[in-house]
Amino acid sequence: MAEKVRQLTDSSGQKIEFREGLEGVIAAASDICFIDGMKGILQYRGIPIEQLAEKSTFEETSYFLLFGHLPTRAQLSDFENRLKAQRGVAPELLRILADFPRHAEPMTLLRTAVSALGAYDANAENSGIDQNVDRAIDLIASFPTILAAIQRIRKGLPVIAPNHKLAHAANFLYMLSGEPPNEYSAKVLDVCLILHADHGFNASTFTARVCISSLSDMYSAITAALGSLKGPLHGGANSAVMHTLMEIGSADKVETYVKKKLAAKQKIMGFGHRVYHTYDPRARILNRYSHKLAEITGNMKWYEISKKMEEVMEKEVGGRGIYPNVDFYSASVYYYLGIEIDLFTPIFAVSRISGWAAQVLEQLRDNKLFRPECFYQGPLNIDYVPIDKR
Amino acid sequence: MAEKVRQLTDSSGQKIEFREGLEGVIAAASDICFIDGMKGILQYRGIPIEQLAEKSTFEETSYFLLFGHLPTRAQLSDFENRLKAQRGVAPELLRILADFPRHAEPMTLLRTAVSALGAYDANAENSGIDQNVDRAIDLIASFPTILAAIQRIRKGLPVIAPNHKLAHAANFLYMLSGEPPNEYSAKVLDVCLILHADHGFNASTFTARVCISSLSDMYSAITAALGSLKGPLHGGANSAVMHTLMEIGSADKVETYVKKKLAAKQKIMGFGHRVYHTYDPRARILNRYSHKLAEITGNMKWYEISKKMEEVMEKEVGGRGIYPNVDFYSASVYYYLGIEIDLFTPIFAVSRISGWAAQVLEQLRDNKLFRPECFYQGPLNIDYVPIDKR
Repeated sequence: MAEKVRQLTDSSGQKIEFREGLEGVIAAASDICFIDGMKGILQYRGIPIEQLAEKSTFEETSYFLLFGHLPTRAQLSDFENRLKAQRGVAPELLRILADFPRHAEPMTLLRTAVSALGAYDANAENSGIDQNVDRAIDLIASFPTILAAIQRIRKGLPVIAPNHKLAHAANFLYMLSGEPPNEYSAKVLDVCLILHADHGFNASTFTARVCISSLSDMYSAITAALGSLKGPLHGGANSAVMHTLMEIGSADKVETYVKKKLAAKQKIMGFGHRVYHTYDPRARILNRYSHKLAEITGNMKWYEISKKMEEVMEKEVGGRGIYPNVDFYSASVYYYLGIEIDLFTPIFAVSRISGWAAQVLEQLRDNKLFRPECFYQGPLNIDYVPIDKR
Repeated sequence: MAEKVRQLTDSSGQKIEFREGLEGVIAAASDICFIDGMKGILQYRGIPIEQLAEKSTFEETSYFLLFGHLPTRAQLSDFENRLKAQRGVAPELLRILADFPRHAEPMTLLRTAVSALGAYDANAENSGIDQNVDRAIDLIASFPTILAAIQRIRKGLPVIAPNHKLAHAANFLYMLSGEPPNEYSAKVLDVCLILHADHGFNASTFTARVCISSLSDMYSAITAALGSLKGPLHGGANSAVMHTLMEIGSADKVETYVKKKLAAKQKIMGFGHRVYHTYDPRARILNRYSHKLAEITGNMKWYEISKKMEEVMEKEVGGRGIYPNVDFYSASVYYYLGIEIDLFTPIFAVSRISGWAAQVLEQLRDNKLFRPECFYQGPLNIDYVPIDKR
């Protein structure tokens, strides 16, 4: 693999090498996520993502990520009930959210809301593992409620309370629209939540682990992760893909668009991944769901543009290991589900909160402060010059 | 140096080594901060910290960190005026802060307030360097105002507006107490702010750089850094030192306390540092100020306990490279200045915001997403077991 190694010379003339962006550098050991980027394999705690996507639910996968084993029926039922019981959001938080200007982005509001939850938690400074497990479950449970409230408020609509008859994904769609979703839509969103729930030391998870390594609290770590996920190089990519699909507009315009972009050496959103140098296994699953949703909705356009982009990219740059990533097909899937584009990134968070929480708990169980070195490349031993002599 | 290298064996039997906490690993190159932990040298952009502490101001040092050169008189005056103009805080933000429960910690509220600032910034998604420089100046300017407001609200006191006749440090003390501080107190706090303004890739700064590396926004990065600083292994250490001094109570009890702690292999707060294996140059400067403040206030106790702790520790573990760090003498200095213990950590933030902002801008100018590897040590290729067979 071609990690970018930067070479520099220090003040004593010694050559120094380091890997930019810590690419290829092992930062810690983990039991949570296995990725083979050459073979396109993703496993959560050893179970292939394809099996979880087909057979599990987001609730069960979250339990699995947090506790390290698949739950018994009683354990799963208890966990689902705890999630339902924690779906509610304090009226004080809704009041604050309603007070923000309408131009504020959902990710900014979600980040602020999670930070605020730390202020409501009278026990926030208690950093025992049990308390942090409780906080993890609270956060997994309340993310959909907070996000749906944020979106309803932004649109000037009344906030909808959770419906305890509905499972996690279905209830989220219900709180967004006010209508219980059809079974298939709920199933597809559930699969999306499973697929995005963890992915090793991606930027937001690494941010969370670095943050908690000072033995800070769960709210700090998840707030930090949300800040990272917000960036266009990370969670922001899925909405960028949708904007690209819309900009192209129809499948017959794909070839020209892609070739022009490639000729100008511009990045094509949704292709290529730091870790995968082959087809992202999540994209393979989402590809199928995008196709099915296109047929069900009778609107083939977004799937066809996507499919064509994939074909043209394969022909043009497939040999260079640039393939569709998870963001590529999640864009059309979310759009077919009727989800607004500005929610694509925060929905990533509604899923990844399970992985973040599991990773933060793992970090706390065997913590070591993340404190790397920087290579100082500036001048040395300069005297302070008085202001009149500058 | 004895970095802790962990050795593991991967699934194919290959031996893998990595450094826990990325200790000794170069994460990026930087022009901002030079530290020689063996010789006890700290320089901001090449100027020794001792010269800056003696001759500069926090405002000037902030300019220097942000822009890479010492300002001319006109540049400094302009920068000071910009800082003064940006000290104000939106009434909406004060309303939110007043709405939080009284038990919320100042660091939690500061973290939430900075995240909220992103929601008020109608231009928050514009990530050009110029916009981010403006945001940096806004944050440096408003941190003292926000923190003073948080503390006044927590104590049920009216919030005090900034006084534009006062410099940065003096105005902060004024907004806390309502009384303009004496000149010496203001000078000492100003020195403290200079000393804490940057320190390479410490945990909070590294958190900020990791966060912004997804090309997220300044608010996300600084919110993340605040979350990291909050932890007891980082910014939380200075208040822990003060609690230790109080627990000991008098200089004659130091020897017994220290020996008992060492015998029990317990950490003594304020001693030892990941980077320094000799006397922290900042502690040397703060030692002198603690001494002077003890004399001025006529209360030698905290200085004497500190001094005695240093002596006993030197005798017991000096040979192992464990010396006072910046937190050790900043504790008694802040206490002598009449600052409440629960503000010690957020005051660290009032200073470090300058370094965080400079480091975030540096990261944005030559960005590479931080995305290290984790070493997966769990089981592989497990089949999903149906719930009835678990």
